[in-house]
Amino acid sequence: MHSREELSSRIEKYIAELSFPENPLHLYAPISYTLEEGGKRLRPLLTLIVCYLYGGDIQKALPCAGAIEVFHNFTLLHDDIMDNADIRRGKSAVHKKWDANTAILSGDAMVIYSYHLLQKSPAHLLPQLLADFNTMALEVCEGQQYDMDFESRDDVTLEEYESMIKLKTAVIFGAAAKMGGILAGAPEGDLKFLYDFGTELGLAFQIQDDYLDTYGTSELLGKQVGGDIEESKKTFLAITALNEAGAATRRALVSTFADRKLPLAHKIGRVKTIYDSLDIPRITRKVVAKHLDCASELLDHLSIEDPAPLRQVIRALEDRNK
Amino acid sequence: MHSREELSSRIEKYIAELSFPENPLHLYAPISYTLEEGGKRLRPLLTLIVCYLYGGDIQKALPCAGAIEVFHNFTLLHDDIMDNADIRRGKSAVHKKWDANTAILSGDAMVIYSYHLLQKSPAHLLPQLLADFNTMALEVCEGQQYDMDFESRDDVTLEEYESMIKLKTAVIFGAAAKMGGILAGAPEGDLKFLYDFGTELGLAFQIQDDYLDTYGTSELLGKQVGGDIEESKKTFLAITALNEAGAATRRALVSTFADRKLPLAHKIGRVKTIYDSLDIPRITRKVVAKHLDCASELLDHLSIEDPAPLRQVIRALEDRNK
Repeated sequence: MHSREELSSRIEKYIAELSFPENPLHLYAPISYTLEEGGKRLRPLLTLIVCYLYGGDIQKALPCAGAIEVFHNFTLLHDDIMDNADIRRGKSAVHKKWDANTAILSGDAMVIYSYHLLQKSPAHLLPQLLADFNTMALEVCEGQQYDMDFESRDDVTLEEYESMIKLKTAVIFGAAAKMGGILAGAPEGDLKFLYDFGTELGLAFQIQDDYLDTYGTSELLGKQVGGDIEESKKTFLAITALNEAGAATRRALVSTFADRKLPLAHKIGRVKTIYDSLDIPRITRKVVAKHLDCASELLDHLSIEDPAPLRQVIRALEDRNK
Repeated sequence: MHSREELSSRIEKYIAELSFPENPLHLYAPISYTLEEGGKRLRPLLTLIVCYLYGGDIQKALPCAGAIEVFHNFTLLHDDIMDNADIRRGKSAVHKKWDANTAILSGDAMVIYSYHLLQKSPAHLLPQLLADFNTMALEVCEGQQYDMDFESRDDVTLEEYESMIKLKTAVIFGAAAKMGGILAGAPEGDLKFLYDFGTELGLAFQIQDDYLDTYGTSELLGKQVGGDIEESKKTFLAITALNEAGAATRRALVSTFADRKLPLAHKIGRVKTIYDSLDIPRITRKVVAKHLDCASELLDHLSIEDPAPLRQVIRALEDRNK
C-alpha cells in the first residue's frame, strides 16, 4: 500500500536524480535550476496515483510522470519570458537570472528532454503514450496563444476563458491521469473518465491560480502578487467582473486595466476594490468548488473500488493557498 | 525505380499538404509560413533515399522525414530570434514579421509537431526512432549553445568548432540518414556508417554555409550576406584566419570584429580583405572537399550494391552556391 506521501516522494526523488551533462553549462544549469524543489509535482503525482490504483508498476510509470513534470516546467520557463514575469517560486525567472536567449534555448532542451524521459516507457505503450502526450502538448501551446490574444481584448466571454484554460492548464492534468491509466493497463472505458477527472481538477486549479494571483500572499506563492492585473490578463476574476459590473463600474475597470501610467500598487488596489464590491472572491470560490465536485463525481464511474487517494487530491486542492 | 527528383517531390508534397488548424491564428500561421517552399529539404530527402535504397516503403518513411524537416525548421525559427537575424529564405524572419513571443511559441509548437509526425511511424520502430530523434534534438540544442558561447571568445580552436557544428548541424544529417535505414530494416552494421555518412555531409554543409555567409550572394542565399561577421560568429573562416594570421593581422581581425561602431559594410569589407590575404576561401573549399570525400568513402562500407543516389547528393553539395 502506497500512500499519497510515498508516491509524492518517489516522484520528487526521481526528478532530483535526473542528471544533466555539465556542459554546455548555460544550456543545462537553467534546467536543473528550474527543476529544483519548489514545485508541487501535482501532475506527475496524478500519474503515479492512477497507475498505482489500477495495479500498475510505479517504477515503470516514473519516466512518463517525469516527462509530464519536465514538460510542465518547460511551459513555465517559456511563459515567463512571454509574460515578462520576473519571479517564479520565490526565485528569479530563468530569463532574468540568465537572459532571454538562454531561457529560450534551455526551454527547447527541456521539451526535448521530456520526450527523452517519455521514451523510457514500456515500448508497447509508447505509440499511445506519445500520441496523448503530443496532443496535450500542442493544446498547451494553443492555450498560451489564446491567453496572450485575450490580453488586448475586453470582450472575452467566460466560455472562451474556460476553453483557454482547459487548453493551457487542464489538459496536462487530464493527460497525466489518463497516462497513469494507460501505464497500468486500465480498461479503455476508464481512460476517458480519468482524462475528464484530471481536466476538472486542472480547471479548478487554474481558477484558483487566478484567485491567488490577486488575493494570495507573495510569501506563500513565491511570486509577485498582482502580476495578472499588471499584464491585463483576462483571468476568471477579470472576466466575471466585466460581466457582473454595471456600465460605470465596467468603464472604471477597463480604464484602470488600460492605464499604463498608474503605479502598480494603486492599480492592484483599485482593481481589488472593484472585485470586492462585485463579490468576485465568493463567486470564484463557488466555481472552483463546482469543478472539484465534477471531478469527484467522475470518480464514481471508474471500475476500481476505492479511489480514495484521488479523493485526497481533491481535498488537498480545496484548501490550497499556494 | 525512384529518382532523387521523385523522392524530392514526394517530401515537398508531404510538407505542403501538412494541414494546421486555423486557430489560434498566431500560433499556426507562422508555422505554415516557415514551412512554405524555399527550403532545400535535404535532410528528409536523405531519409527517403536511404529508405528506398534498402528496399523500405517510402510511404511509411514520409512522417519521419517530415518530422526531421519540421524539427530543422523549428531550429531556424528559434535561432533567428537568438541570432537577431531579420531575413530567412528571402522573407522576414518570424520574430520580425510577427514578434518575439509569437516566434517563441510557434517554435515550441513546431518542435512538438515534429514529434506528432514522428509518432505516425510504424509502431514497432517507434522506440528506436524516438531515441535517435531525441539524442539528435538535444545535441542540436547543445550545438546552438556552444555557438552562442563562442561569440564572446577569441580562442576557439578548430577542434572546438568542429565539435560545435557537428552538434549544431551535422547530427541532423546523420540521424536523417540513419533513420531512413531503421525504417527500411537496414542491417544494424550499416546504421553506424549511414549515421557517419550523414554527419560528414552535414559538416561539409555547415562549413559551406559559413563560406557562403561571407562569400555568397544574398539573392541566391535569400538572406543578408555578412551576418556571421556582424554577430562575431566563430565560423570556420574566422577561426582559421585567427589561426593562420601573424600577430599584427590577428590583432587587426580581433579589433575589427569587436568594433561595434564600424558600419557593417566596412566591417565586412575589412574582414574579407584579411580573409583573402590569408587564402581562407581556398583553405575552406579544401576542408569541405575533405568531408565530402570522407562521406564518399563511408558509402563503400554499406551492404547495398549501388548507393548511386547518395553519391548524387554528394555531387550536388560540391556545387552548392545557396
